[in-house]
Amino acid sequence: MKIYRINMATLTVGAEEVPAEWQGLGGRALSSAIVAKEVEPLCHPLGPNNKLVLAPGLLSATTSANSGRLSVGAKSPLTGGIKESNAGGSAAQKLTRLGIKAVIIEGKPQGDAFYSIHIDSQGVTIAEEKDLLGKGNYEVIRSVSEKYGDKVGVLSIGQAGEYRMMAANISVKDPDGNIRSAGRGGMGAVMGSKRVKYISIDDSNTSGPEIADPEKFRAAAKAFAKALTEHPVTGQGLPQYGTDVLINILNEAGGLPTQNFRRGNFFGADKISGETMYDTIVARKGKPTHNCHAGCVIRCSQVYNDKDGNYITSGFEYETIWGFGAGCLIDDLDVIAQADRICDDIGLDSIEAAVTVGVAMEGGVLPFGDGQGMLNLLAEVKKGSYLGRILGNGAAFTGKALGVTRVPVVKGQGIPAYDPRVVKGQGLTYATSPMGADHTAGYAVTANILKVGGYVDPHGKQGQAELSRNLQIATAAVDSTGLCLFVAFAVLDIPAAFDAIVDMINAHYGLSLTGDDVSELGKAVLRTERAFNQAAGFTNKDDRLPEFFKEECPPHNTTWDFTDEEIDEVYNF
Amino acid sequence: MKIYRINMATLTVGAEEVPAEWQGLGGRALSSAIVAKEVEPLCHPLGPNNKLVLAPGLLSATTSANSGRLSVGAKSPLTGGIKESNAGGSAAQKLTRLGIKAVIIEGKPQGDAFYSIHIDSQGVTIAEEKDLLGKGNYEVIRSVSEKYGDKVGVLSIGQAGEYRMMAANISVKDPDGNIRSAGRGGMGAVMGSKRVKYISIDDSNTSGPEIADPEKFRAAAKAFAKALTEHPVTGQGLPQYGTDVLINILNEAGGLPTQNFRRGNFFGADKISGETMYDTIVARKGKPTHNCHAGCVIRCSQVYNDKDGNYITSGFEYETIWGFGAGCLIDDLDVIAQADRICDDIGLDSIEAAVTVGVAMEGGVLPFGDGQGMLNLLAEVKKGSYLGRILGNGAAFTGKALGVTRVPVVKGQGIPAYDPRVVKGQGLTYATSPMGADHTAGYAVTANILKVGGYVDPHGKQGQAELSRNLQIATAAVDSTGLCLFVAFAVLDIPAAFDAIVDMINAHYGLSLTGDDVSELGKAVLRTERAFNQAAGFTNKDDRLPEFFKEECPPHNTTWDFTDEEIDEVYNF
Repeated sequence: MKIYRINMATLTVGAEEVPAEWQGLGGRALSSAIVAKEVEPLCHPLGPNNKLVLAPGLLSATTSANSGRLSVGAKSPLTGGIKESNAGGSAAQKLTRLGIKAVIIEGKPQGDAFYSIHIDSQGVTIAEEKDLLGKGNYEVIRSVSEKYGDKVGVLSIGQAGEYRMMAANISVKDPDGNIRSAGRGGMGAVMGSKRVKYISIDDSNTSGPEIADPEKFRAAAKAFAKALTEHPVTGQGLPQYGTDVLINILNEAGGLPTQNFRRGNFFGADKISGETMYDTIVARKGKPTHNCHAGCVIRCSQVYNDKDGNYITSGFEYETIWGFGAGCLIDDLDVIAQADRICDDIGLDSIEAAVTVGVAMEGGVLPFGDGQGMLNLLAEVKKGSYLGRILGNGAAFTGKALGVTRVPVVKGQGIPAYDPRVVKGQGLTYATSPMGADHTAGYAVTANILKVGGYVDPHGKQGQAELSRNLQIATAAVDSTGLCLFVAFAVLDIPAAFDAIVDMINAHYGLSLTGDDVSELGKAVLRTERAFNQAAGFTNKDDRLPEFFKEECPPHNTTWDFTDEEIDEVYNF
Repeated sequence: MKIYRINMATLTVGAEEVPAEWQGLGGRALSSAIVAKEVEPLCHPLGPNNKLVLAPGLLSATTSANSGRLSVGAKSPLTGGIKESNAGGSAAQKLTRLGIKAVIIEGKPQGDAFYSIHIDSQGVTIAEEKDLLGKGNYEVIRSVSEKYGDKVGVLSIGQAGEYRMMAANISVKDPDGNIRSAGRGGMGAVMGSKRVKYISIDDSNTSGPEIADPEKFRAAAKAFAKALTEHPVTGQGLPQYGTDVLINILNEAGGLPTQNFRRGNFFGADKISGETMYDTIVARKGKPTHNCHAGCVIRCSQVYNDKDGNYITSGFEYETIWGFGAGCLIDDLDVIAQADRICDDIGLDSIEAAVTVGVAMEGGVLPFGDGQGMLNLLAEVKKGSYLGRILGNGAAFTGKALGVTRVPVVKGQGIPAYDPRVVKGQGLTYATSPMGADHTAGYAVTANILKVGGYVDPHGKQGQAELSRNLQIATAAVDSTGLCLFVAFAVLDIPAAFDAIVDMINAHYGLSLTGDDVSELGKAVLRTERAFNQAAGFTNKDDRLPEFFKEECPPHNTTWDFTDEEIDEVYNF
């Protein structure tokens, strides 16, 4: 395995051996270690001293189920802290098959030209790119696939990334040529600042990674897949309804943030629910279930068509539907699907975009509930108009531009989909994660709402700090394996699933790690990330929710009532 | 003396006795003490929990020369930290004559209405204001003066404050009905968030404050005025040429930041210099020297007319002329005067605006040197267009909107007029002041360039931390007296001037303070302010200049080369 270091100032590439300290790392553990070691914490995130890191996980390109995730790391333009943004698609598996442990993109070209980067078994080629400038991700993926063949992997930025907007994401081609996203924290802006329009990855003439103990690996992988298919969330709920199954659940729980976090239930929930989506997809001959990378057995993605049966979008997630839907008082799933498609195409984080539209509605740019107006706003982002430049920089930025005080963000990143006053464990994760408000960073919805991995009363404070802490540690470990975080549903309830992951890592690398070692890995990742953020100027004062969460949230009228000391308990490990 | 507390949520007013802990304070010491005690450091600066504080100084409305300054305090929307913004004009003297130690404006109305506040010897009246909404400060002052008479004092916001832009200032009427500004840090946005369009102050039927020892006061005031008129800076340079006398001096020193801080000298310096301005004013029958408040003997202001002899602006300062001039490569003093007038009228900090235009030029919104384009940008701010909302929020915000990395700010506030690589003591003040990049917070140009109060080599590091520290302490004390900071030129060179200030305070209040007590007051102010900022999440990581200052600054090719430890020495007291 090697590390490719691509210097965009000199347009040169070096292949490096993996230093000993990084050999046992992958995914988020590796991307965060590289950023922490090599990026000056006070550098400008869009300047020459930031670095963009791509890191497949420890189990990438193996036969393990759900092992296709890629970690993308950098100093975030959105939060000002360290960022790992995690995506499916085919890139991680292809990079690993090419023997690549990580790609580090550093420096910045002097001029205005953009470039493409092609990686294959011969090495890395940088070329000036002109034709695809100003184009959306769908066209980039189509064009690059025409050039290199349908199987080529693609990482690309849309217009938002070219504009270096703080909510710009990096799109990752999935096996069907559709789009997955390393969504949060502006990784697309960092890629745009390096002036890289796309990275194509051709893994022809490669084989999978060498496995130290293939038989042991096979047995563990089988046990792992079995657990995933047996658990009701990963075996039934997610495959049938996708993540949007959560609309009815959160609405019922009164924790579905509605009208820019004014209340926790939405009159139009049923019209945007996973159940409604399922029926709509089936009626329109879309795909209700679909995988974002080879080897996924959960298949929570889907293909959503319009009334005429034409493709609109895929990977149509609960958080996106929540945000453009309940958050903005829009109950038309077709309009929300169009918004999701536009976000994918222009390369804009759909969660940040949805929170931003809610703030723009709060600021009077358009009324709540105006679906066509929402689509028009996204068109402004695509154009790069001044309004678009405001919106494309996210919710915190838009709030400042409009003088709005009700702005749901932590560390500058928009709060997603679960009201912190109602799902309080989730609120602690939003407050304390080094990533900013990130629902995946420690998904306490499990024990608070889904009764997976035990039960902690969502309205109470008791047990929430421990819950968020343990989930953040476990998540940091899972994000380092290259496994999809959704495996956690099975892992939290089925001990054999966790054992299987440890066994797979041991069989892969000829190690004899224990469960405790994996937990220690998670802690080490979080410590590295927190240390970077502290060096960038963060303190526990950044681990706080906006003051408006002291207001009651109907219908349960709970408030955000943790003391500072209680919040700070989360990182007491 | 009393404190008026005006609650804009309930539209009620209370008169309170001055608590013992605040009785010996005035100006900045008082405004910062009130903000530190009463404002939650993590509140939203434009939300109901911020407070706007008006505080005349310890010597306000006495016969002391140059004692007309007002301190305006709040949590700053621009920096996120505590702010004291200091202005001339007649408000401070009138408030003191009305027996008012401070005005605290708190809360926030529910609806969209704006209000006016009238203060006179009968008390405080709040009324809804409709007619003047959307109007500029010149019209507000004219209209309010028509209503209450020419002598009425006025504090007002223009369109920028109504829009709650982070660079919005508060305008203070001067004795001629023209405009002085509490410029920096977005105090106008805070006033706008309280929905106060203007405050009128009528001090009819009042007398000056009671003086404990009138004879001693008279003698000290005389000695003080004598020192001011004898010192070459306050007695000759500033009265004749205004602060713009510094253009040629800084250009000569290579420290006049040119083209968004690319170099330290400007080809067009002569055309925008104080000497040129003087000749122009005289030729056009303006006023080359003019006072911003009653009792000023320095008279550094002026009235600048157009070619036809019509008034354009007054209080036309070096930093404004530098910013719109050298900073933007514009060498037309008439265009710069128009820009200054627009800023005064719409209530926009002219320093922040100038730095912002430089960043917009960097970002390709318009070319460097485009004077008419610059005036057009300011017109966008007045309109509140989306471009205007970007620009009106300042340089850091504009840099983010445009993806620009060369953004000269500290703590979010634009760096003024003196290149920190060339005038290094000034750089330390920019880096470490709790106010953000504020040239007045510790004006090391004195010893670095003007050889006032000794000499410290501007390019060297030796002695700069001590210089900046001592000046910041002295400034915090001067800002608490209500004296104009320019008295410091005399104070630094003439010991009798400093003694006279201490004598005046003692004679006024029947105290027996020493010089050390005054220094301790300055230290206490800075400690209070730093503590607030720390509670708001600031660390020493916020005491750093942007990374591009590591580049050389022609023509001297010096760099910003202080280590973190050396910077942190400034606040070692």
